[in-house]
Amino acid sequence: MEPDPRMYVHGRTVREAERLAYQASGLAHILHHDTRYPAGSQVLEAACGIGAQTVILAKNSPEAEFVAVDISPESLLQAERKAAHEGCANITFRTADVYDLPFGPGSFDHVFVCFLLEHLDDPLLALHRLKTVLRPGGTITVIEGDHGSALFYPDSLDAHRVIRCLIDIQREMGGNSLIGRELWHLLNEAGFSYVQVSPRLVYADAGHPESIEKVKNIFIAMVEGVREEARSRGMVTGPEWEKGIRDLYRTTENGGTFAYTFFKAVGVQGE
Amino acid sequence: MEPDPRMYVHGRTVREAERLAYQASGLAHILHHDTRYPAGSQVLEAACGIGAQTVILAKNSPEAEFVAVDISPESLLQAERKAAHEGCANITFRTADVYDLPFGPGSFDHVFVCFLLEHLDDPLLALHRLKTVLRPGGTITVIEGDHGSALFYPDSLDAHRVIRCLIDIQREMGGNSLIGRELWHLLNEAGFSYVQVSPRLVYADAGHPESIEKVKNIFIAMVEGVREEARSRGMVTGPEWEKGIRDLYRTTENGGTFAYTFFKAVGVQGE
Repeated sequence: MEPDPRMYVHGRTVREAERLAYQASGLAHILHHDTRYPAGSQVLEAACGIGAQTVILAKNSPEAEFVAVDISPESLLQAERKAAHEGCANITFRTADVYDLPFGPGSFDHVFVCFLLEHLDDPLLALHRLKTVLRPGGTITVIEGDHGSALFYPDSLDAHRVIRCLIDIQREMGGNSLIGRELWHLLNEAGFSYVQVSPRLVYADAGHPESIEKVKNIFIAMVEGVREEARSRGMVTGPEWEKGIRDLYRTTENGGTFAYTFFKAVGVQGE
Repeated sequence: MEPDPRMYVHGRTVREAERLAYQASGLAHILHHDTRYPAGSQVLEAACGIGAQTVILAKNSPEAEFVAVDISPESLLQAERKAAHEGCANITFRTADVYDLPFGPGSFDHVFVCFLLEHLDDPLLALHRLKTVLRPGGTITVIEGDHGSALFYPDSLDAHRVIRCLIDIQREMGGNSLIGRELWHLLNEAGFSYVQVSPRLVYADAGHPESIEKVKNIFIAMVEGVREEARSRGMVTGPEWEKGIRDLYRTTENGGTFAYTFFKAVGVQGE
């Protein structure tokens, strides 16, 4: 069975919206500080969701013009409200499917994609479509995580088991949460030039209290989001689930450490 | 049976000496650029081995005085030759066991340790001993890898199996090659103050040819070093070993990527 293209492994709940907003602001500097677009440039953000990254992008490049699209009208509504609330006047929102973009060839100077490819069954096709709407010489920026990069102390097989539930459920829905390490391959395969990949490791220990909150509110909250799905599929027992989540929280306490790596790639359309 | 304290999982062969020298020079900037000691300060490098890091340290702080110790007289001889060859006059070499240091309390202004704790059966005791020879207000700098951080594309269970051989053999010899993530805990537990841990991720793709050579000559060569041991213990079959190593090399070719994270920690002796 084909997964519903509008399905989203993390769900579209209020808690998930809060998690996404926190994720975007908590990681804004490390992920977005080096993305700035010139005045007057036309930028497409594909799959903006609830606008968590969009407002950061738009504020960092206040004189660029953004078109932010998403497949979910409900998410777009939230994104529009968020942009209005933050006073961002340089964003136009529009419903669109990344596989079937309503824009002509070369419509944009730049394309930006964050945490999208991991949810797609054909990320290479998406990159081809995005390349088409990009003008020659324009850039694509892609940011993705990689759940295989999660490294923590104390190490725990139970914690790895609950993370594995998220990875497996996402894969069954057609996605790939281990995609960060593949960005180099995917962008080159899609025909982008001058591809540059830069990994961004986020590390937390008690000496970095703000990073500990990120681990809890972004990563562990994301894993907790598939609890019902994992239980109903019989991937884990209730006690196994509870133990795995407890062990993840244990890494944020009392001598614990946690590391996670995001991958940011930039490529150019044309030779 | 207690492992021989002079055993070294990677062996003391010519090839290993070459690998260590390459490792030190290839990673010099990322690991050592932010370690500089003031003129006149007395610095102990514990477990200098063949002096691969020692000469880098001594050149980066030409007016500091280094005492470099190791348990192996054969390694020290190589280290002395290397230092002479590189024209480093600010290093004194001496045979010593890190658990039983021949120095009085507070003998040193700073202590430096690189790729040592991973080989010890009691890293916490070693840190306590090192703390004793450090004066109040002096610093300890510790650099360790973490083999659990190896992340690569294409991913491969066979490649993970051969890495697991190295991890398991090292653990059976009393060591712990997953120790990088524990540095925060260990330094705090040993009573150091103001502990700061900074991970250093090394990433390789075809856009970074020099990094690809590091993956081959440092990481894969290190895994290959336990081939006989892994085979003789029956941890893998011959074909499994060959396949795992081939898959590791595959990550350095044709769209492949490889990431590995080192952890650098600094702590202060005293409140």
